[in-house]
Amino acid sequence: MQTVYVLSGPAGIGKSTTSRALVNALKNSAYISGDHISHMHVNGRKKPWESKDELSLIWNNILSLTENFVTNGVDVVVDYVTFPEDVLWLKDKLAEFNVNVVYVVLWTDMETLLKRDQLRKKEHQMGERCLILMEEFNKSGLDAKHLLDTSKKSVEDLEQVIEEIMNNNQFRLD
Amino acid sequence: MQTVYVLSGPAGIGKSTTSRALVNALKNSAYISGDHISHMHVNGRKKPWESKDELSLIWNNILSLTENFVTNGVDVVVDYVTFPEDVLWLKDKLAEFNVNVVYVVLWTDMETLLKRDQLRKKEHQMGERCLILMEEFNKSGLDAKHLLDTSKKSVEDLEQVIEEIMNNNQFRLD
Repeated sequence: MQTVYVLSGPAGIGKSTTSRALVNALKNSAYISGDHISHMHVNGRKKPWESKDELSLIWNNILSLTENFVTNGVDVVVDYVTFPEDVLWLKDKLAEFNVNVVYVVLWTDMETLLKRDQLRKKEHQMGERCLILMEEFNKSGLDAKHLLDTSKKSVEDLEQVIEEIMNNNQFRLD
Repeated sequence: MQTVYVLSGPAGIGKSTTSRALVNALKNSAYISGDHISHMHVNGRKKPWESKDELSLIWNNILSLTENFVTNGVDVVVDYVTFPEDVLWLKDKLAEFNVNVVYVVLWTDMETLLKRDQLRKKEHQMGERCLILMEEFNKSGLDAKHLLDTSKKSVEDLEQVIEEIMNNNQFRLD
């Protein structure tokens, strides 16, 4: 039985770092970056947070790749700003594949998030958009059991965070 | 009616540069790098030139993304070492979507290819594998009408090469 891990959270929280470490901790695993999938569409692309069609195209692409991987016995890590409605749609679409879906929203307080954002390369800094996304998560009806507080975690704690994502059943979607 | 461009050729020939320029010349377009798709599979990945299952997973992923893009009115550029049997499989799978499939194999002589390979960053140089791939194309039953000779082309000729790929009907698969 394959597992699909969806690692979410506001921009700047550390999704990519955590996702890559998780992929490397799994035996047979694929890494799907939603941002990369999104930017495969080069000309004619709309901003996914402004266009439902664009967002839907991205999620259909993530779904198709995930289906192909799990069919081939590969666990999948999806790294993308994912709201509860997105992951419920994904789980529903994957119903026939009999997979576990693990949904983790990396979280911290606003101050820490802004500090982390400022540590990134200038061109990757999201500034205010970090906080807007945090607000969106707060309003999304997210069940608190999917939150993983990373406020006091540093890179040295990564291994322990990965272990929690892999073994703590509270993150599983039922 | 959407077009799917498959840009092939041995390693080092200039597939990525040409593909990116082509994507940028199209109005509504997506760029699919076969190498990137291949490396989404992180742990448990086999070398696609040694494993039929791995190669098949890659092509199924390329196909799924292509289907999603053309369904949304987006032209697709596939950048990958693609042999005639691969592109015929792809065209067959896309039959119901009523798309044009354009298959271009960028080509040159062995000496020029090795020279170009040596101009790449050390970690991207393929050395002998360039020539092995060339041999594989020679033995693949490739129809010469799909060859595009780039021996005398430089980066300044890129615009003209793109125009030829877009407008020369000889590259179309019937």
